Amino acid sequence: MGDPAGVGPEIAVKTVIMPRILKQCNPVIIGSREVISKEAAKYAPGKKVMAVSKISDCDFHPDIINVFDIGEKGLDKLEYGRISPIAGKAAFLSVVKVIELALDKQLDATVTGPIHKKSINEAGYYFAGHTEIYAYYTHTDDYAMLLASPELNVIHVTTHVSLREACTLITADLVYKKINLIHKGLQAIGIEHPKIGVAGLNPHAGDEGLFGTEDIEQIMPAVEKARKDGVDAEGPIPSDTLFPKAIAGTYDGCVAMYHDQGHIPFKLIGFNWNKKSKKMESVSGVNITLGLPIIRTSVDHGTAFDIAGKGIASPTALVDAIEYAIRISKNSIS
Amino acid sequence: MGDPAGVGPEIAVKTVIMPRILKQCNPVIIGSREVISKEAAKYAPGKKVMAVSKISDCDFHPDIINVFDIGEKGLDKLEYGRISPIAGKAAFLSVVKVIELALDKQLDATVTGPIHKKSINEAGYYFAGHTEIYAYYTHTDDYAMLLASPELNVIHVTTHVSLREACTLITADLVYKKINLIHKGLQAIGIEHPKIGVAGLNPHAGDEGLFGTEDIEQIMPAVEKARKDGVDAEGPIPSDTLFPKAIAGTYDGCVAMYHDQGHIPFKLIGFNWNKKSKKMESVSGVNITLGLPIIRTSVDHGTAFDIAGKGIASPTALVDAIEYAIRISKNSIS
Repeated sequence: MGDPAGVGPEIAVKTVIMPRILKQCNPVIIGSREVISKEAAKYAPGKKVMAVSKISDCDFHPDIINVFDIGEKGLDKLEYGRISPIAGKAAFLSVVKVIELALDKQLDATVTGPIHKKSINEAGYYFAGHTEIYAYYTHTDDYAMLLASPELNVIHVTTHVSLREACTLITADLVYKKINLIHKGLQAIGIEHPKIGVAGLNPHAGDEGLFGTEDIEQIMPAVEKARKDGVDAEGPIPSDTLFPKAIAGTYDGCVAMYHDQGHIPFKLIGFNWNKKSKKMESVSGVNITLGLPIIRTSVDHGTAFDIAGKGIASPTALVDAIEYAIRISKNSIS
Repeated sequence: MGDPAGVGPEIAVKTVIMPRILKQCNPVIIGSREVISKEAAKYAPGKKVMAVSKISDCDFHPDIINVFDIGEKGLDKLEYGRISPIAGKAAFLSVVKVIELALDKQLDATVTGPIHKKSINEAGYYFAGHTEIYAYYTHTDDYAMLLASPELNVIHVTTHVSLREACTLITADLVYKKINLIHKGLQAIGIEHPKIGVAGLNPHAGDEGLFGTEDIEQIMPAVEKARKDGVDAEGPIPSDTLFPKAIAGTYDGCVAMYHDQGHIPFKLIGFNWNKKSKKMESVSGVNITLGLPIIRTSVDHGTAFDIAGKGIASPTALVDAIEYAIRISKNSIS
């Protein structure tokens, strides 16, 4: 469901009734029956909301929206676009429940809508985001986020640390782990023999040690070790060459060394910006958490509080996230 | 002319005979008469190459290619695509001559073709590139490269240093200087009231100091000081938001903190990659050196040794560079 004060419930309702989605999977919204009923009345007239407390009670009929009710009350009175502990608690409980159901194999895959860090924290749950919640409740140490889109797939070696600290954290061991994670991740989304480009840290990947030694001392040995394992990795490649080449189809996936190195090209390709209103209209691109014992994909956008409740939120990113989850699910089974 | 073993002479000849260019300016190639004659025979049949040793001797007629001859001999025997001190010397002398002529006001603006650092160095001239040659021969201390295209204009606070060193070099004073340079540079290319976006250094521009303090301690004061001068600058802005917004038209120019931060988005927008051959076909985008007493623009691509002499080099980037030089020239005069 995502945060009930954001666009999450709206796009969830819009998405689970799509024939395109119903043809491929049996969707269940994990969240508040009250919230979903309110949104369904607006965006899915003629469909019936059915609340269940067991997945086996779901009725997968095109006219029925199945909701696994987390049982919180009064959520339909929430104001749109507001940070609140009530919204944060509902969002958090929905995430914990979906993890629990997937660990128990009642669900084949999980897809998360946008939540708000501040609301979660105000509710007393101190997590930086979905990924950390998933890692905690599935007891996972080595995990990473794959940013996925048809044009570009990126994994990061470091994320939410200062650039100075990122330079220090980049070790051959960590780079090697991330190469392996993206290799398996790309196979999971259906690329049998993925070609992986590993970014350099410094300009021109250090220009043979002239501008920094991390490229030679840390990144190169990691790439060589991965190649010995049979992984088709290349690098370190100057990042201003790597990403244009990847988008042109030379690489199936890229390993970025720090947050902005991977996020600049990914967002540049995925942002749809309205020039007139000077606002973001939609972001294509899906987050996939790699290394977990369960499947988890997510939209790559936030709660979009400024347009929540207005009926104009685009479900495209959620459709993409669900379709990636289905793809991974099929590859895991086969 | 650029390096005579690269694509420089070919694209120079192709460009100076274009009616589009001749309508806007009187072009003179500074370089080797021999080299230009050889290329003109291939790409400008029917045109006459006229060698001069004074700009006032040029004959600006559509059927005449004017060459200011640097006087080196035997250059037409050079092999294409090879690093050599002979090619390096000719390229270097051409650059020094064009600077001299512009400082002497015999030329309104200068445009450089691609040179090869190794050839220049083998010839005994130890410069990292054009910009350093220009700075040295014009006695300029505070200069910077503006990467310019219709979609994106970027200036860098640091360039060819390790990422670790870049973090240390970013000071309020240096950021302030670069904001002023891009402000004047954007005005020079015809944007009267430029809106400037200044990138953060750390992810999320440090997230209020959570991931690094440079954004608050160095970048923010620089932006505030520039704003007090009347410069319409904003920042620090998380770089993965700044560049998509800039390309969507929210900012006329961007200040990048380090090499790859500005080069990733600039190249992503400008690279034209051939998916079949897996080679770069062309790069749009122009380099403009700001802070010099003379006008200098340049193509943003290299000598392209792999396609030199084959007749397939695209002159588009050189046309763009010349048209930017003309634009700046007109704004400087008015």
